[in-house]
Amino acid sequence: MATTRAEFMEIFPQLTKVLLSDLTSFGATPEMTERIKQMFEYNVMGGKMNRGMSVVDTVKIMRNETELPKDINEKAMVLGWAVEWLQSFFLVSDDFMDESPTRRGQPTWYRCEGVGVMAINDAFILESAIYRLLKKYFREEPYYIDLVELFHETAYQTELGQMVDLITAPENDVNLDRFSIQKHRYIVEYKTAYYSFYLPVALALLMTGTPADSPAFKVAMDILIPLGIYFQVQDDYLDCCGDPDFIGKIGTDIEDNKCSWMVVQALDRASPEQRKILDENYGRKKPAEHALRVKQVYKELDIEGLYKKYEDQAIAEIQDKISKVDESLVPKQVFTAFLNKVAKRTK
Amino acid sequence: MATTRAEFMEIFPQLTKVLLSDLTSFGATPEMTERIKQMFEYNVMGGKMNRGMSVVDTVKIMRNETELPKDINEKAMVLGWAVEWLQSFFLVSDDFMDESPTRRGQPTWYRCEGVGVMAINDAFILESAIYRLLKKYFREEPYYIDLVELFHETAYQTELGQMVDLITAPENDVNLDRFSIQKHRYIVEYKTAYYSFYLPVALALLMTGTPADSPAFKVAMDILIPLGIYFQVQDDYLDCCGDPDFIGKIGTDIEDNKCSWMVVQALDRASPEQRKILDENYGRKKPAEHALRVKQVYKELDIEGLYKKYEDQAIAEIQDKISKVDESLVPKQVFTAFLNKVAKRTK
Repeated sequence: MATTRAEFMEIFPQLTKVLLSDLTSFGATPEMTERIKQMFEYNVMGGKMNRGMSVVDTVKIMRNETELPKDINEKAMVLGWAVEWLQSFFLVSDDFMDESPTRRGQPTWYRCEGVGVMAINDAFILESAIYRLLKKYFREEPYYIDLVELFHETAYQTELGQMVDLITAPENDVNLDRFSIQKHRYIVEYKTAYYSFYLPVALALLMTGTPADSPAFKVAMDILIPLGIYFQVQDDYLDCCGDPDFIGKIGTDIEDNKCSWMVVQALDRASPEQRKILDENYGRKKPAEHALRVKQVYKELDIEGLYKKYEDQAIAEIQDKISKVDESLVPKQVFTAFLNKVAKRTK
Repeated sequence: MATTRAEFMEIFPQLTKVLLSDLTSFGATPEMTERIKQMFEYNVMGGKMNRGMSVVDTVKIMRNETELPKDINEKAMVLGWAVEWLQSFFLVSDDFMDESPTRRGQPTWYRCEGVGVMAINDAFILESAIYRLLKKYFREEPYYIDLVELFHETAYQTELGQMVDLITAPENDVNLDRFSIQKHRYIVEYKTAYYSFYLPVALALLMTGTPADSPAFKVAMDILIPLGIYFQVQDDYLDCCGDPDFIGKIGTDIEDNKCSWMVVQALDRASPEQRKILDENYGRKKPAEHALRVKQVYKELDIEGLYKKYEDQAIAEIQDKISKVDESLVPKQVFTAFLNKVAKRTK
């Protein structure tokens, strides 16, 4: 049985408790402990938690069990939450850098009273918490160092993706010359795919005894990175063309000068006239006509049709790769479970 | 022979080269690599490098050698530079949070053209570089995981110290009620002493074969944390009373609302009238009369005399602790070398 959100959330108070009592060995005062508690609860909780839950689901598939033994279940949950802590480190800092107003339907952390620039140091503390959790729960395991290295490597990948994103699409300096299909691909692969898709599965593989040098990791990467890229392309598409009632937000990628799949495809196919319209209208917050003109160009170039073709092809390629997986390394179900969650989603 | 600055700097290009060629395994483009190279050179180089060099010096004392064998020397240098990388992670982010204009006589990184808020992500990359270096040079060593854990723990300590500093002394919200001798002590211990004094020695102990559970680490901590605190108190004193020609900068702790040793001592002894003067004049950038009035209170309370007494006592206590060190654990010279660099310095 797939892990439910409620089951997954149940362990969160235990993890914050562990982290907060660990703080006493760092001389923390009650004032500090209370502030860190609030910071964890505000930023780590409240997302969809798909990344974290997928660690537990993958462990279940790897062990071919619908219910995990208590100790294994706890460990899988801890790794799942460690992924959520990693994500909160990125979200808190990205929101500050992007000056985003809201996240998960509430004000972004740096915009909360008394936080501001302190959010940056809070992001560091969120990151440090990952390694405190790993030390607490995995120190005696033979794969402890592999977990630590995997988190380091994934953080580095995400930071490099964020760097290219920041260089390519600074919010207040529109220059579409910097955008390209290659840059977009690097950003989505490094900024999203590794930590969202590869990391949860790689953690589950390590936890279930796969040696760090097993070819299973390459098999997983070869499927999950394309899947993660497809997921982010879909996100870019839905931001532009999805139903706001369904997605729960109104997309602003055009206004925010985002290096989106939609715009890099449009730039690749635009006539000089269309390019001029994109140059003059992309990345402008107001008035709304700017974004509408950009969308008109997307329509002329049938970027939506292009997306549908891309989507069918991406799914077909991933399915083909899955069909060829050597199940002595990883069960195919690990990947089909992911693909089924992502393919043709509308929100 | 103590390591010279020139010797220590000699290995820096090799380390950046290793980190930059490692970036190719992260799909980095020449544009990315060039930017990261500049970022490393701008932020990691150019300091006094005392922290980094002290790793190498401590290894020499531990091994009782004036010159280290080539491979040992390289490893000690790498750990020394890893400390410098850690420091650059803190400085780049602290300067952003504090809106500091200059660092080491040049504009702070976030103020450089085209950097701005990207400095935050650059700080993450500086931190990640530490673990890339450790993996590259120490992966096969039995103490590899101990090095990694030590860097994690030290980073966490420093982040907690920075958190208390930010809560206690936000630059634009003066409230001396938040200041206290206890808070000051926490900030200097956590924000400075661990990474500047304990970390270099603990790294050298691990590198020279001290098991992670040896009492040697506690011995080192019991001396180096008080020494680090004394060092920072001295820094606070020199900022206020040192000779600007000698220190190379004009202190602005009073104007910047810093939770300095000077002000927490003054608050502890101030009459209601003096307290009123401190409340009305501390943390004001302009005009210069504000700071002069604060200094007048310091003079009335003879904080300078108090400092001299504190200094003599701190040195005596540290010397006493050193005299009692069990040299089968750590040679006394490890600590006297540090004390001699710090005691009675005037810059």
